[in-house]
Amino acid sequence: MPESPVSTRVVPWSYAGGRLLLLDQRLLPHEETFLECESAVQTAEAIRSLAVRGAPLIGVAAAFGLAVEARRVADRAPGDFDAALVLAAERLVAARPTAVNLPAAVARMRRVVEATVGWPAAGRAAALEREAGAIAAEDSQACLRLSRLGAEWLRRRWGGRPAPLTLLTHCNAGALATAGIGTALGIVRTLARDGPVAVLADETRPFLQGARLTAWELKRDGIPVTLLPDVAAAAMIASGKVAAVVVGADRIAANGDVANKVGTYGLALACRAHAVPFVVAAPTTTLDRTCPDGRSIPIEIRDGEEVLFVPTRAGETIRLAPEGVPALYPAFDVTPAALVEAIVTERGVSEPPHAAGLKALAT
Amino acid sequence: MPESPVSTRVVPWSYAGGRLLLLDQRLLPHEETFLECESAVQTAEAIRSLAVRGAPLIGVAAAFGLAVEARRVADRAPGDFDAALVLAAERLVAARPTAVNLPAAVARMRRVVEATVGWPAAGRAAALEREAGAIAAEDSQACLRLSRLGAEWLRRRWGGRPAPLTLLTHCNAGALATAGIGTALGIVRTLARDGPVAVLADETRPFLQGARLTAWELKRDGIPVTLLPDVAAAAMIASGKVAAVVVGADRIAANGDVANKVGTYGLALACRAHAVPFVVAAPTTTLDRTCPDGRSIPIEIRDGEEVLFVPTRAGETIRLAPEGVPALYPAFDVTPAALVEAIVTERGVSEPPHAAGLKALAT
Repeated sequence: MPESPVSTRVVPWSYAGGRLLLLDQRLLPHEETFLECESAVQTAEAIRSLAVRGAPLIGVAAAFGLAVEARRVADRAPGDFDAALVLAAERLVAARPTAVNLPAAVARMRRVVEATVGWPAAGRAAALEREAGAIAAEDSQACLRLSRLGAEWLRRRWGGRPAPLTLLTHCNAGALATAGIGTALGIVRTLARDGPVAVLADETRPFLQGARLTAWELKRDGIPVTLLPDVAAAAMIASGKVAAVVVGADRIAANGDVANKVGTYGLALACRAHAVPFVVAAPTTTLDRTCPDGRSIPIEIRDGEEVLFVPTRAGETIRLAPEGVPALYPAFDVTPAALVEAIVTERGVSEPPHAAGLKALAT
Repeated sequence: MPESPVSTRVVPWSYAGGRLLLLDQRLLPHEETFLECESAVQTAEAIRSLAVRGAPLIGVAAAFGLAVEARRVADRAPGDFDAALVLAAERLVAARPTAVNLPAAVARMRRVVEATVGWPAAGRAAALEREAGAIAAEDSQACLRLSRLGAEWLRRRWGGRPAPLTLLTHCNAGALATAGIGTALGIVRTLARDGPVAVLADETRPFLQGARLTAWELKRDGIPVTLLPDVAAAAMIASGKVAAVVVGADRIAANGDVANKVGTYGLALACRAHAVPFVVAAPTTTLDRTCPDGRSIPIEIRDGEEVLFVPTRAGETIRLAPEGVPALYPAFDVTPAALVEAIVTERGVSEPPHAAGLKALAT
């Protein structure tokens, strides 16, 4: 009997006829509002402000941002096409530094710009739309494939562990972070198709990707989810109730060091202390062979104000701390390769030593 | 030249003439409002609701809650004195389960109730007031002494580490948690008297003791403090910028396992991974020799609603997560003794193996 397909009801973006719509993730879970991006600048701002986030999805969004820009310029000022697209590409890449999917997707789009020099502008815009569509379709396929591989790897790793299986995750590596069923949450969805699964979601301060996004998308797909304050994760892992920790990644160095949402490293340390599998799930677009190790991954430092204030639905903010006290907000941390039991990609699963494992997957 | 005394401008309680005033820590840092507790029931509610918190301070508050109750009953129904005090003691002990200072202080007060049987009720109330005053004075003295010992231990441990010294702390183990200069923050204040010190304060979700309380009290005393989302602590420890992590404790088992605010265990794991000193500071009233190890320490599970909602100053709440998604909130975790480099008490500093170290301090 063939397996039923794994799917999701969560689709955070659409593109048709030159219109890019991005679900504004700052407003979830309370409001489902789509932002229309009519230029690359608007798309870059949506990425910078976290209206759209998640390493694979910001790659897809940036690609479509360039498609939107190409259409716009082809209509209005076709003679400026190359200059406008180069500038747009630079702006998009500058929006956020850590996820490599963003510059990788933009570089791929720029190659189409270069390969179509001499074509009519409308044809070039159509070629860029096709390329962005291909980037999205490949990401969606990668999610499906790596989720199946990850689920199989975990089942083998667990042996006969009795259900329900409780997976702990951090941030949001789901449908809201990709063009498909997600990476970490793609694995969750795949396991949930075949048996009872429960998710413990770190709330993931300060942007609350866990509380706002992971909880919302799992609830929408009918998968049981319970929130944890981030500080409780180590105790939950120590309790023996967590079958595995599964997270996404923003950039994976050649040696297997993983940059992911800040807080990931602490989870990996707790998993190691209690022999709980710590699994990173990411498409190969997240691998960066130009970074030899984690030290060469640029870590985004965001504004401390994002820690100090909680936004209200009315558009106001609540100050959490006394005036005059600053906050530090490194948005990512680096988990050393040695703590990662498996890096699951659509091309296969790397086990330590990851330098060799990832090299084999890349070739 | 004699050392100048270490002090604080932060005093979260007062008792005089039968009136117990407790600074309502739920309203900090925005409002400084004192709750007046006119009975043991009100005091128990102040403890349960976290208006007053911090292991040593809830012991002191409970002791004065019994003094208030004794005065009240002596005035109104002296014949009910013993029954009323026994009931009051039970209510206070039931307010929160994890900090041993609470039942220890109440037990000490009950011994005075028993020792004064046959006295006039007013005299018994006065004896209970004196005992509560002694508990507070001893806690204040213990803070001073353990802070000096902790500062000396750290200076030795650091050798010639250049200033400024950056200490990372979790929750609030300061003047707002004790009847004196604090435990972890008492050490900070002692070091700050003698040279430049900077504090990184975990915000400590969900009650935000770090963002609201530690930041407020250090700012008030002129000690530089920067907030961190809890998730960023491991990365900061890995960066080499943290000279030590210093925390308080709610209960320390005979073998040295430490129950403290949830999130402490993760810090200890990160410290071990990077050879950063992990120090627990607590008066000996926090030691519980009836608990052989951490497994026998009762861990308070608080209402998940405290994770799901952020209170506003207007008395409303902001929901962080989608409706229908539950949250889990274990308020404490247990750090195994082997990860604790030093347990600093007013009687001396225990180093591993703590079973022997603590036994020596207790006798």
